[in-house]
This record gives sequence, structure tokens and C-alpha cells, in this order.
Amino acid sequence: MNIVIIGGVAAGAKAAAKIKRLLPDANVAIYTDDTHVSYSSCGLPYYIQGNFSDYRMLLVRSVEEFNAAGIEVYLESKVEKILLKQQQILVCNKTDAYLVKYDKLIIATGARPRIPNIHGVTNFDNIFTVRKIEDGINIREQMKTAKKVVIVGSGYIGLELLEAFVKNGLQVTVIERSNRLISSLDADMSDLIRKRLESIKDRNFEFYTGEIVSEIKGEGRVANIVKTHSGKEFNTDMIIISAGIIPNSELAKDAGIEIGKTGAIKVNKLMQTSVPNVYACGDCCEEPHLISGKSVWVPLGSTANKEGRCAAMNAAGIYSPFEGVLGSAVSRCLNTTISMTGLTEKQAIEAGFTPVSAVVSKTDKVAYMPDVGDITLKIIADKHSGLLLGGQAIGAFGADKRINSLATALLAHLTVKEFKHNDLTYSPPYSTTIDPLLDAMNILCSKINKHC
Amino acid sequence: MNIVIIGGVAAGAKAAAKIKRLLPDANVAIYTDDTHVSYSSCGLPYYIQGNFSDYRMLLVRSVEEFNAAGIEVYLESKVEKILLKQQQILVCNKTDAYLVKYDKLIIATGARPRIPNIHGVTNFDNIFTVRKIEDGINIREQMKTAKKVVIVGSGYIGLELLEAFVKNGLQVTVIERSNRLISSLDADMSDLIRKRLESIKDRNFEFYTGEIVSEIKGEGRVANIVKTHSGKEFNTDMIIISAGIIPNSELAKDAGIEIGKTGAIKVNKLMQTSVPNVYACGDCCEEPHLISGKSVWVPLGSTANKEGRCAAMNAAGIYSPFEGVLGSAVSRCLNTTISMTGLTEKQAIEAGFTPVSAVVSKTDKVAYMPDVGDITLKIIADKHSGLLLGGQAIGAFGADKRINSLATALLAHLTVKEFKHNDLTYSPPYSTTIDPLLDAMNILCSKINKHC
Repeated sequence: MNIVIIGGVAAGAKAAAKIKRLLPDANVAIYTDDTHVSYSSCGLPYYIQGNFSDYRMLLVRSVEEFNAAGIEVYLESKVEKILLKQQQILVCNKTDAYLVKYDKLIIATGARPRIPNIHGVTNFDNIFTVRKIEDGINIREQMKTAKKVVIVGSGYIGLELLEAFVKNGLQVTVIERSNRLISSLDADMSDLIRKRLESIKDRNFEFYTGEIVSEIKGEGRVANIVKTHSGKEFNTDMIIISAGIIPNSELAKDAGIEIGKTGAIKVNKLMQTSVPNVYACGDCCEEPHLISGKSVWVPLGSTANKEGRCAAMNAAGIYSPFEGVLGSAVSRCLNTTISMTGLTEKQAIEAGFTPVSAVVSKTDKVAYMPDVGDITLKIIADKHSGLLLGGQAIGAFGADKRINSLATALLAHLTVKEFKHNDLTYSPPYSTTIDPLLDAMNILCSKINKHC
Repeated sequence: MNIVIIGGVAAGAKAAAKIKRLLPDANVAIYTDDTHVSYSSCGLPYYIQGNFSDYRMLLVRSVEEFNAAGIEVYLESKVEKILLKQQQILVCNKTDAYLVKYDKLIIATGARPRIPNIHGVTNFDNIFTVRKIEDGINIREQMKTAKKVVIVGSGYIGLELLEAFVKNGLQVTVIERSNRLISSLDADMSDLIRKRLESIKDRNFEFYTGEIVSEIKGEGRVANIVKTHSGKEFNTDMIIISAGIIPNSELAKDAGIEIGKTGAIKVNKLMQTSVPNVYACGDCCEEPHLISGKSVWVPLGSTANKEGRCAAMNAAGIYSPFEGVLGSAVSRCLNTTISMTGLTEKQAIEAGFTPVSAVVSKTDKVAYMPDVGDITLKIIADKHSGLLLGGQAIGAFGADKRINSLATALLAHLTVKEFKHNDLTYSPPYSTTIDPLLDAMNILCSKINKHC
């Protein structure tokens, strides 16, 4: 049996390792246009920051380890076509083009940075995206001489890079086309993130929201001016484009595999595409949302790993459904933890719910403890049923703890009233006597039913 | 309407504040033999450690605040008797004894330290328990001149005090009659706590387990030698007795109110005792365990607050059941977070389950991050049904995060198979790509059903 996997960052690498363990006699091969396989893309901001100096720390499994496990890895080998009828793929490397036969195909082509339509964006060598190992190496190199950086986009990666640059003494300008940071959160929580970050004393960074970058200018291959549509100009020594990502679904689409409304590959719970013997997993495919039931595209490393595992199991003939995602995420920017799960208020309305929310601001531990911080927690529930729908937390380390408890409640489809009876741990260094989660539930209860 | 509350540390203080808000026209009065009301007993180890220097930081609400809210507070006023037939209590203070009429009575008498039967234990002024504000003040004072301390008992409070003394440069000896530390956890996890603590370089503390203190000797009012039954002798400048607590249920028992098998006051879900118009809440009463269904006595500050709130609501005529506890707890000792929820293996067997467990040791964040720590997580489930039963976590800050997610799963009666689909947050500073909770679930799944 020939098992072919296209792509090998997270989902592909996991799928390869898992299926070889399940089917030791099968031929398992990874084909990727990348120079590396099995690495932590999420770790790039910390490599750039200088938390560690050897990029090989980002590698989860080396090519040698894959080979030792009996898995072939073909780097810099781009799959140009999937030939469904003949169950073959067309591979092109620097010197050759050749066909490879598969019995089971697992597509794990991932996603790539979205490059906004900016005049000059492709003309310079000091404009970077943050996705691959080389991106990290190149940004670190450029950072050595740079004093100013412009970051285009203020999603999680944009803000993680802000931290990396600030810690290295650079002056940072973030330009965001939306009117707020981290627009995947509700507006009130976005505003809070900005307020917290802008409250840092002697900060060396500025946010410009509602500004669209219209042009990048420079001399030779070196960009040095970023212009926005409103006429602002920023001098800079380097530019980061972190304006979102798009799924690498074209290869599948061109072969005739069904693509979902999100633009990512459509799969069922067994990670099967519309074509027999072809699976997809990771950032290139959509997944069901556990609360809305809708197909969503939430490309995250943790999900990619789980989907890779499921794809491998199902391809090996072991029933293993992937039930879906909650969109749980966490990110850090300087003094601020940003975490969320489930639906935002806007998404809740779109999904047909009547959201009601509670926002609680509280210390992260008992106020008399040293290093006390604060957390603002927003919980969203359905006004009619009391069903918990989602939540967002901003603040000190420990904000993520509340979101993981809430994610578990969402998984279990708990109502506000049920969650109120939760017995969460308490000790002064870890929490307030009444955890903010329970305060929020009490507030929501009275909004839903005066004495629930 | 006269509402009388006996005791005012956590449950009593909460009940008083809540019922006055619900019934503003009622007379609400707290009677306590304590010198303070509404304080954080759990914060004493941190006050002793010196994390803050004013003990008033431990006060949640002052007497003046209670009075301003229309609540009377009678300090150093011991309730000697509850006269059920006439709905009165007998109060004794320094100068008087008097009767007080109640329409609703809320018993929140709390718990007190258990004093083991040790020869000489009551003869000296430098032997302390850790429960009240004065205990904290007295220990801090004694600590100024002390160089050596013996702690009798290695539960949460014993280990929290160990941290406090070690941080203040004292040489600490912990004597524990059981053969392991924190015997409320499973033995394998207890051993791990000891191993972690004993791995601290140049540590200034020693554990002696399986040793029973038989005698305390001294000169005048100053104890200076602690002897154990095996013949060991320890010189010391002060002694802490932290050998567990017992419920203050005698007052209720003497009045004829039903006491549960645990020795604490029996209440139903509405916090009603066996006698009409008499409620109990907090450390003096039992509560149902959400997994075993049994009546248990798990005296904790977070539960006391919730029970106080429920007692007040029900006493005010608003239906508000307290569903029970999971026994969720967290504690810190130096480099080690200790956290648990639900049933231990032993408790699971006693409750009629067939426990199967998974133990996962993993870094608390991605290994390349600075300050990476480690967490060992044990999850227990029922082999037949797959129902999650409990868990324990030892290690870095963040161990408690996993336990709170698990507590939520226990509340929702999730199975291992259901939890496997959880979407927990991931980012390198916060977690590994696959959270240890999910690793444990995968291991448990294969123990329950090869490919679940």
C-alpha cells in the first residue's frame, strides 16, 4: 500500500508518523515544496524574539527521524497536480518531474500568508511574511541592523511580532485596516487590548487602525517608506506583512476535489474529501464548529495535529471522527494574554442565537498577593436557552485558564445555570475566592432569569 | 424578621451580606467568638511569608462596612446554645450572657485545627496552629527570632507554611504520621511532590514521614524539643500544628440538629438542616460529591462562599440549590503547584467504580520557550463506562489550568471519549501543541478500548 502525504508541517507530519505506526508495512512518503518538514510555525515569533538561537529547536521531527521510522521525505518537491483517475501525483523538484502512485492520499498543504494588494509589495527584499523557517532566519538577520519596523496587520501574529521587535529595541508601527486590533474578538475586548498595550510606559510602538497601506517605496531592493491611503508616511527599515492567511486549496480544487464556502477543502468528519481515498487535514481544510454546526475555517496548529491524527486513523481503516472545533486560541503580546473560545457576539447572531453577555474585570489572584494582575472575562450565552456560546479573556497570564474551562463547558453544551455549580480550584496565588468565570455566570443568570 | 448568623469568616460573612441585599428590611446579625469577621484564612501563609505586611489586607469586609450595610456584627460573642423550640440563641461575651430571638438561623461555625494527642502540646507558647488572624500575627512575631521550626503535618497548609518559613531563612522540619506528603492525593502523585521538593538545591528543609510526634518538651513556656515515637529528637524554636481540621458541629449537635457521618452538619441541597428555619453552610457542614453522590466533608473557602450565598438565598425564600462539590483544590509549595479534582483511585473504588488511570509528564509550554517547566498529570476514568472520575496535577504554574478544565468535564459528566474532542487553546508560551490533558485522554482511550 502506497500512502502519499502532500505537505509536512503539522498535519502532514502527524499523519505520516501516525499511519506508519498503524500500518508498518505500508510505504509512507511526504512530498513538500518546503525546505523543512515537521516544524512549529507558531514558534517563529519566539525564535525571532531571541528566546532561543538555534532554529532547529523549531523542528519537531527531523528528516532523519522520519527516515529511521521508515517514512520517506521529499523536500523542495512541489506537487503540481493530483491525477485522481489514475491515483497519481505529479511531483516537480529542481531537476525532475515525475509521477507517484498512491492508494491513499492525504492532502496537508496548509495555508500561506495573504499578501494585500499594495503597490510595491513584491519589489523589495526587506518585506517579510512569517510562516516558514526561512522567514524567521531572514527576519532575525534583518533585525540586526534595523531600527524601525512596520507591521501590516494586527492579528495574533502581528502582535506576537510586535512583542519580538519591542524586546529587541526596535521602534514598531502597526498598521491595521480594520478600526481595531485582533478583529476576531468582539469590539469591546479589542478596545481593551489596545488600552492595555498603550498603557505601557515609555512604549516604543504605535497603532494606526483604520489605515490601509497603499504603497511601499524604496531604493533598489530596500523598502524605506510605507504610505497609507489617508496620506500618512512611515519611514522604516523593514516591513512585516501579517494580514491573515489563505488556505492552500488550489491543488485540490484544480483536481476537482470539492472546496467549501470558506475557500478551504471540504471534508467530512473522517477527514475524507469528496473523492474516495483522498483525505485532507490541517490548515488547508475546513472543519465543523461545535456550537454553530457550521463549516468554518480556523487554521491552528493544535487542530492541525488532531486532524492529521484522525486522517491517518481513518485512512488506515480505523473509525476516528474529528468532531469539530471551538476556535479556541491564545496569544501573548507583552503584558497581555489574549484568549478566546466559541462564538463571538456577532457570530452568535449569525448562527441564529440571541446572545447575552457578561463582562467581569477582576484580579487574577487575591489582591494581596505579589505580582497581582488583572483579567477581563467576557462570557456569551443564549438568552432563550441559557446555552453557553463563547468567551474571551484579556489580561494577565491565567486568562487562558478560564478560556480552557469554558471550552470544556462548550464541548459539553453546558448552560449558564449548570456551569454555576462548577467547583473550580482556589488558593490565593492562583485565583480569587470566587473565580471570574463564576462571577460572570451569576451575572448572566440574572440577565437570563432574575434568580436562576 | 430576625436573621441570625453564627460565625462570620467566609460562609457566614457571605450569607449575611447576601441576605441583607435580598431582604433589606430584615434584621441581620452575625455572632462570632472570633476577634475578626470576614477574612481570608487561606491568605495566612502569605501574610506569614511576608508577601504583605498589614494583616488587614486579609479582611474582606470590615465591621464598619457590615454596619454601613445595616448588618450588626458581635465579635468575641460566643454562641453557647441554640434553643430550637423557642428559636433563640444564648450568647456569651466577656461581661454578659443573653438570649437572641431568630426567625431564620444560619450556622456557619466553620472548623478548627485538629490537635493531635501529643504529650505537652498545650504547655507552650511557641506552638501554633494556622487558622485565625491572631495565629498569623503571632507566628510572624515568633519567626523574627526563630531559626528552626518543626511543622507537624504535611497537608496543604503544612506545605504552604514550609514555603513561608523557607523564604524567611528558617530551617524547616516537617513530620508527617502518614508515609507520604499530601495524603489526599494518590500515592504516586504524593511521591512526585516529595521528589520535586527534595530536588531543590541547597534546600533548608527535611521531611520525616511515617513518624508520629509523641512528645514536645521545653523550658518554662518555651518548647524546644520535638520527639517522635521512633525515638528521633528535633531541636526547634517554634512548632506548627497543621494536622488537619475538624468541623465545629458540636453546637448544632448539642441542640439536636442532625450530624452527618463525616461529623459535619447534615444539610440538604437548600442548605437546610434537619430543623426548620435552621440552615448551615461552610466548613461546619457536609456537601454531596458530584461524582460519587456521597456526602463528603471538603472544607474549602471557595465552597464556603458558594454555600453561604445559597443558604442566604434559600433562607430568603429564593430556590437556590447547592449541587455539590468535586473537591477541587490547588496549593503551592516553592517550585511546585499541587492541584486535584474529583475522586482519587482509592475513592473511585470506594464509590463502586473500576478506575483506570493515565499519567502524563510533559513540559508546561513548548520546550524551546524560556522558563519552561514540567507538569505531571494523572487522569482517572471508569473502565466500563469511560466516565471521567478525577485527576491530579503536579508541577509548574499551569498545572491548575488542566485541573479546572477537568473539573468542568466532571461537572458535565463527560466521558474520556467525549473529552478527546476538546479544543483547548495553544500557543508556545502557554501549552504544548497537544495539551497533556489530551495526551492523557488518548492513553485512557486505548486502555478502555483499543481504538476509541
